[in-house]
Amino acid sequence: MTESNRAFGAAIMARVEDLASISETAAGLTCTYMTPAHQATASRLKAWMEEGGLMASIDALGNVTGRYPSANPNARTLLVGSHYDTVRNAGKYDGRLGVLTALAVVADLAQGGIALPYHLEVVAFSEEEGVRFATTFLGSRALVGQFDMAALAMKDADGVTMEAALRAAGHDPATIPALARDPASLLGYIELHIEQGPVLLEKDMPLGVVTGIAGGIRLLVSIAGTAGHAGTVPMGLRHDAAAAAAEIVLLVERRCSAAPGLVGTVGMLTVPNGAINVIPGRCELTLDIRAPDDATRDAAVADIRAEMAAIAARRGVTIAADEVMRAAAVPCATPIQEALASAITRAGLPVVRLASGAGHDAMMLGTVTAAGMMFVRCGNGGISHNPLETVTVEDADVAARVLRDVLVNLPG
Amino acid sequence: MTESNRAFGAAIMARVEDLASISETAAGLTCTYMTPAHQATASRLKAWMEEGGLMASIDALGNVTGRYPSANPNARTLLVGSHYDTVRNAGKYDGRLGVLTALAVVADLAQGGIALPYHLEVVAFSEEEGVRFATTFLGSRALVGQFDMAALAMKDADGVTMEAALRAAGHDPATIPALARDPASLLGYIELHIEQGPVLLEKDMPLGVVTGIAGGIRLLVSIAGTAGHAGTVPMGLRHDAAAAAAEIVLLVERRCSAAPGLVGTVGMLTVPNGAINVIPGRCELTLDIRAPDDATRDAAVADIRAEMAAIAARRGVTIAADEVMRAAAVPCATPIQEALASAITRAGLPVVRLASGAGHDAMMLGTVTAAGMMFVRCGNGGISHNPLETVTVEDADVAARVLRDVLVNLPG
Repeated sequence: MTESNRAFGAAIMARVEDLASISETAAGLTCTYMTPAHQATASRLKAWMEEGGLMASIDALGNVTGRYPSANPNARTLLVGSHYDTVRNAGKYDGRLGVLTALAVVADLAQGGIALPYHLEVVAFSEEEGVRFATTFLGSRALVGQFDMAALAMKDADGVTMEAALRAAGHDPATIPALARDPASLLGYIELHIEQGPVLLEKDMPLGVVTGIAGGIRLLVSIAGTAGHAGTVPMGLRHDAAAAAAEIVLLVERRCSAAPGLVGTVGMLTVPNGAINVIPGRCELTLDIRAPDDATRDAAVADIRAEMAAIAARRGVTIAADEVMRAAAVPCATPIQEALASAITRAGLPVVRLASGAGHDAMMLGTVTAAGMMFVRCGNGGISHNPLETVTVEDADVAARVLRDVLVNLPG
Repeated sequence: MTESNRAFGAAIMARVEDLASISETAAGLTCTYMTPAHQATASRLKAWMEEGGLMASIDALGNVTGRYPSANPNARTLLVGSHYDTVRNAGKYDGRLGVLTALAVVADLAQGGIALPYHLEVVAFSEEEGVRFATTFLGSRALVGQFDMAALAMKDADGVTMEAALRAAGHDPATIPALARDPASLLGYIELHIEQGPVLLEKDMPLGVVTGIAGGIRLLVSIAGTAGHAGTVPMGLRHDAAAAAAEIVLLVERRCSAAPGLVGTVGMLTVPNGAINVIPGRCELTLDIRAPDDATRDAAVADIRAEMAAIAARRGVTIAADEVMRAAAVPCATPIQEALASAITRAGLPVVRLASGAGHDAMMLGTVTAAGMMFVRCGNGGISHNPLETVTVEDADVAARVLRDVLVNLPG
């Protein structure tokens, strides 16, 4: 290990703080797509890439890339990065930890003149969260040739179109289709990201190899029972919509605890126009079910639907469950999983494998090239999308060293 | 049975329809305290009482009474009646069935010159529902000397005080305290009322003897868990406030099914600011628990509180349960229960005894004299406080004949 490596953690954390100071808001961190804060963040990243010896540029969607080319002009390109936009009142590490770790490591390789059998690019995707416009993965979507030009007409809360926002920032939307990379030119994509959950924290491990990104199904569930006087209808004669909902909540919890990586959440739950002395005649809830593989998720949804039908029949209520979203799971590429696992082992750490329940840019890249992810431990109980989100300097340091080890050992 | 008795049912139903045509609203029935519709209803009742040969009057709170005096001037007075105000978009029978049945029966006795060892008064209480002003039982409260003169300052939704509403209707609030009856002058109170629940309907019986009026406890329950990303927090590491709430809903249902007459309702249930992809960090619900006797109710509440504490400990959430209402149960007077049961038996019907889960004017009268109630079967699954509320003409007829039998056989 070189002297510079030992300082990876501290350098990354200093830059995390630096970027967090560029916000749309006076207090806290908010950096949504193509706002002045977002453009200033892109400029800062480009400057750091150039300072690190990379060939940096900002593309028509705001993605910032820093290239460290191979001596072999016909080599394929490995992308390493994450996103730099944030949710509102965000944590400082979500997305940025991956960008800044990749930047620190690739700059270290460039400054050391380390020869690689592939072109290496740090990529800071401009948009992943879907906050300003109601669509996600804008930056990575364009690189895989799936950017929908109709999205340019989408408006933010102030009525500003995406096209107007891009033009105001000096970008030419007509050049967006040209951002698509030729899949044959790509070696793969590696994304390092804060876990945004408590698994590594609970296992007391700094790093984890992501096995895949969960696919999700969302349902809106509406229960119709019979309203009644809370004092006059005996328990045995009730058709209580909220009691049926309660059974569903616990059913989802029980069924989704039955397979590793499977998760199910009732996030919204309400008795519309409920009153303290009225038996609920209606109850509405939402269901979000995710699993690292679609078969596991689909089996859970089928079981939950069957049990909901049984609850409805037994209680004399009707239950409607409408599917409003379905996304396929994206497995992480085995060669990248194994490259990460080997480097983690060489760092003297056990290999923890876990699925990602949240979506990431790697889902997009995974549609055209070998994509994989490494998670870094999230402190404070695993909280994310929140100012309490935290990563330690020691974890950032070992993450950078492992990533560097992966890059120097990866075949072209 | 005289010829006139056979027509009780049809006559009562005709008057129910007549009163239902006097409403604050163009469609449906709404008759809240001291509105023009309410005053017109009082006038109609007074006219019918006079037509029936009773000495009728409207008091300072709008109660309408019709007196059929005993030949013995020193006799005590039996009150028979119910209330004539309604909820918004009400059923036609709630309160009015009792008033109009009492009126039909007492007028029949008066017209037949039947001598009774007690003074008999039909009383139509002006206010029981608590709709216009946020306080209930205004009419019966005054007769038992418990009217709170401070209530005169309460305002309706338009800012009109109760005092102003009374004065506008020509009443003198200063005379309200004089409405209190001397308990020594009272023989008792009998109230006939639509059941407002499905018990008699399920038993296929027209009449029931009320054993008591349930006492209630209301709690506001607030659960604090840990919010989190619906995709990233494994099931085993969650502290889901809605899942804890679901357990409470089913616990209340299970525990309150364990004793006759005990009922428990979670009427309001919500995840504040819930989102489809966020594990609920908070959940709020209400709890309404009633039983015919306070010991049964208190034991249920104690068990529910203990089990809530166990749920909180097991799930790593906090549960706060604040008591916001507590009302003691009022048992019905045994002599009146037995007088009703004997008359039901003489009518050739089995005696069904049941508790009232809803509050009634009999709760007020029961604080100063022997009070009892008879329920009449409620159709349409037992629905009440709703235009679908219904009673059959045959049930109204047998109710009137049983009430007449009770009155002619009651000792003074």
